[in-house]
Amino acid sequence: MKEPKSLFLPENSLGIVTDFYQLTMAAGYFEHGMHDIATFEFYIRHLPENRSYIITAGLEQVLHYLTHVRFSPEALRFIRQQPSFRRVSDDFFEYLKNFTFSGDVFAIPEGTIIFAEEPIIRVTAPVIEAQIIETYILSTINFQSSIATKASRVVYASRGHEVIDFGTRRAHGPQAGVLAARACFIGGCKSTSNVFAAYELGIPTVGTIAHSWVMVFENEVESFRKYHEIFPDATVLLIDTYDTLVGAKHAAAIGEQLKGVRIDSGNLVELSKEVKKILTSQRMNHVKIIASGDLNEERIDDLLRNEAPIDSFGVGTEMVTSKDAPALGGIYKLVEQEHGGRPIPKMKFSKGKLTYPYKKQVYRVIDKNNFVEDIIGLENEMRGTVPLLIQVVKEGKICYTLPSLEEIQSTALDNIAKLPEPYKRLKNAENYPVKKSAVLEAKKREAEHLLSRINIS
Amino acid sequence: MKEPKSLFLPENSLGIVTDFYQLTMAAGYFEHGMHDIATFEFYIRHLPENRSYIITAGLEQVLHYLTHVRFSPEALRFIRQQPSFRRVSDDFFEYLKNFTFSGDVFAIPEGTIIFAEEPIIRVTAPVIEAQIIETYILSTINFQSSIATKASRVVYASRGHEVIDFGTRRAHGPQAGVLAARACFIGGCKSTSNVFAAYELGIPTVGTIAHSWVMVFENEVESFRKYHEIFPDATVLLIDTYDTLVGAKHAAAIGEQLKGVRIDSGNLVELSKEVKKILTSQRMNHVKIIASGDLNEERIDDLLRNEAPIDSFGVGTEMVTSKDAPALGGIYKLVEQEHGGRPIPKMKFSKGKLTYPYKKQVYRVIDKNNFVEDIIGLENEMRGTVPLLIQVVKEGKICYTLPSLEEIQSTALDNIAKLPEPYKRLKNAENYPVKKSAVLEAKKREAEHLLSRINIS
Repeated sequence: MKEPKSLFLPENSLGIVTDFYQLTMAAGYFEHGMHDIATFEFYIRHLPENRSYIITAGLEQVLHYLTHVRFSPEALRFIRQQPSFRRVSDDFFEYLKNFTFSGDVFAIPEGTIIFAEEPIIRVTAPVIEAQIIETYILSTINFQSSIATKASRVVYASRGHEVIDFGTRRAHGPQAGVLAARACFIGGCKSTSNVFAAYELGIPTVGTIAHSWVMVFENEVESFRKYHEIFPDATVLLIDTYDTLVGAKHAAAIGEQLKGVRIDSGNLVELSKEVKKILTSQRMNHVKIIASGDLNEERIDDLLRNEAPIDSFGVGTEMVTSKDAPALGGIYKLVEQEHGGRPIPKMKFSKGKLTYPYKKQVYRVIDKNNFVEDIIGLENEMRGTVPLLIQVVKEGKICYTLPSLEEIQSTALDNIAKLPEPYKRLKNAENYPVKKSAVLEAKKREAEHLLSRINIS
Repeated sequence: MKEPKSLFLPENSLGIVTDFYQLTMAAGYFEHGMHDIATFEFYIRHLPENRSYIITAGLEQVLHYLTHVRFSPEALRFIRQQPSFRRVSDDFFEYLKNFTFSGDVFAIPEGTIIFAEEPIIRVTAPVIEAQIIETYILSTINFQSSIATKASRVVYASRGHEVIDFGTRRAHGPQAGVLAARACFIGGCKSTSNVFAAYELGIPTVGTIAHSWVMVFENEVESFRKYHEIFPDATVLLIDTYDTLVGAKHAAAIGEQLKGVRIDSGNLVELSKEVKKILTSQRMNHVKIIASGDLNEERIDDLLRNEAPIDSFGVGTEMVTSKDAPALGGIYKLVEQEHGGRPIPKMKFSKGKLTYPYKKQVYRVIDKNNFVEDIIGLENEMRGTVPLLIQVVKEGKICYTLPSLEEIQSTALDNIAKLPEPYKRLKNAENYPVKKSAVLEAKKREAEHLLSRINIS
């Protein structure tokens, strides 16, 4: 009988977690002796609707990948059997057998605010290596950045009230739940319900009870009392299983040790106010009210504008899927190639998808703790501004002290603080100014002219 | 120096890939000697907007999980250190040390069309076990079903033209890309770009070339010729790097061995027609035109209505994130509990979130190869209709012959064929009739009355 497959990622053969064309192209380059050093840049062409900035996240998992990417013998046998590979030599498979990543990588650290068209990762490596790694890098950075950004919007809307990630069950599979928990913390969440994320990353974990707890026991009062007995210092009770206001009274009966109540349905403005009254009438003002149930930045903003006395927000589905903008269109494009010892510019002109050539850097102009504008220029072009891309990998080895997750979160919160309000408001935000340097524009025109002449005739 | 973390799932401790409250509740049940057999049902309360049916997917990964879920000693040490667990006894951790799933599971096989409120998985197990496994099951089924459904819409819109999954780079992390490839195949895609999915699942894999291939060589003509040299039987060329129509001519120069051309930008209706003319003028009508670039079911429908001569669609972002409906709100609710040898009904009344009690079955009425209506009733209530839930796990062991992925795809295609057109059209589909049996309604009223009396007073 067939055994069920886990579909967990193959730790000994991460090289095959890629698109098939990366491998056919790799074989093609190899067979043609094409081992030029190429530079690819990862950037987001357009920000999604409702996003005025992006918070970078996922670099740590990219660095894990780059230092662990290999091909297992079984995987190589499989590739070799593919009909397209019929004419590919043994030497190529021998090459893949010993494949490791040996290039240099520059990246904008995690937790940094970035904008459209800004390179956030720049890879310089033999073209085969740079090509194979594309897919994994894209999916890792696209996803975590998308979630860190959404989380930062939710946290911003919450005006200092705690936001908790409750989303694992609605994430795109079990691993996405863990990555989302990490990204939500970077975006400013205080804690997560995901136990593995807590275990692996040290994110504080919290949990209350589910409706099932209340339903398993004979009645609600009994279920509350029994929970309190085992968790006297952490008694947070879900009060909407049968009737929220009756539930609030049943919870209040626990007495002053009660830590919090959670409301997961109904009109949260009205219910939180009524529940607060019940708690206040019993001198239990210290009891926290936690709200959950399809919350997002707009609904939270609305709750707070309507003065709902809510202390914490448990946010799930909307945050871990970035529901209103569930994909970040990050791309990875060839911009330069060393050939015969000199840099050759590379660019494409596809309609609406033009790319800028050469190795670039992002320069941020900051005035008294405010981000003023960014300039995308050539590498080493400018002085006196802050270059955002820094070297993280040198000849295949990490040359960068990985920040802790708390440090990354601080970077993100600090970046948000420095981004002026018009650029970060939840709706109708203004476009933050990102310019291209005159030198880059001139170099691009020159390359476009040259490449047009060669290719379009 | 800190090593970068992979955040791959912990194969030896899948028990902690769960929400924290599952573990506090488990401890609470344990400490109170609550070992009743409980039945939980997984269902989707409302279908997302733009969805008139759901194709179930992910059961195989759930079965892998249920037969492998454990807690490692390190993970148990971590849980024990959590402040909330201060009063929890050693016995509970001893219990978790030996934890395995020992219950029964009924499920609707993968590839089946289902609707809102229909239980798709029913777990009957000691309440602690049934509780701990909730989170992983939800994220697995929610995600894969959401993608299989989106893929089936894309395939339906494509009217027999091949659909290829190109989405890995935009999926929610590297594992989501693999799970999405599986779900897209179930939904009717013919192939995937994901090499690991091809290796592990036997899905046909395809790939063409990227813009980088074209850019790496001296010019487009040279790059096309060089690709053809190594892949003479599989030459599919991307022609929009510089100018699509010039690119088409360059590709045609390969001669009759050329298999296909891919267009990834611009006005696909106009360009595909122009490209077709160029190919026809050179007697290369056999060359396939593949379109890609932010495609979804609506755009494909539009292309075909406008008679774009496109043979295959490469679909990425929109399909693997189910972009217009990126989350499926599947829930897992306690419906029944055995206590003192008899079944006790369980339900909640939370506003807008009422649940129906007792073990249920879904009965499908089929007339001459057409689905007519579904009835949600009690287990074993009806004869003469097809019950959709079948037993897949008995006392913790799989008692079900896992179908191959091809068989699951056939089931899905067959189900789509049997669903009358009004219920599956892309826009403004009618609601398929799903009723609850009179017996179930009567039982629900009875339970509601009883539970209200106990809990709301």
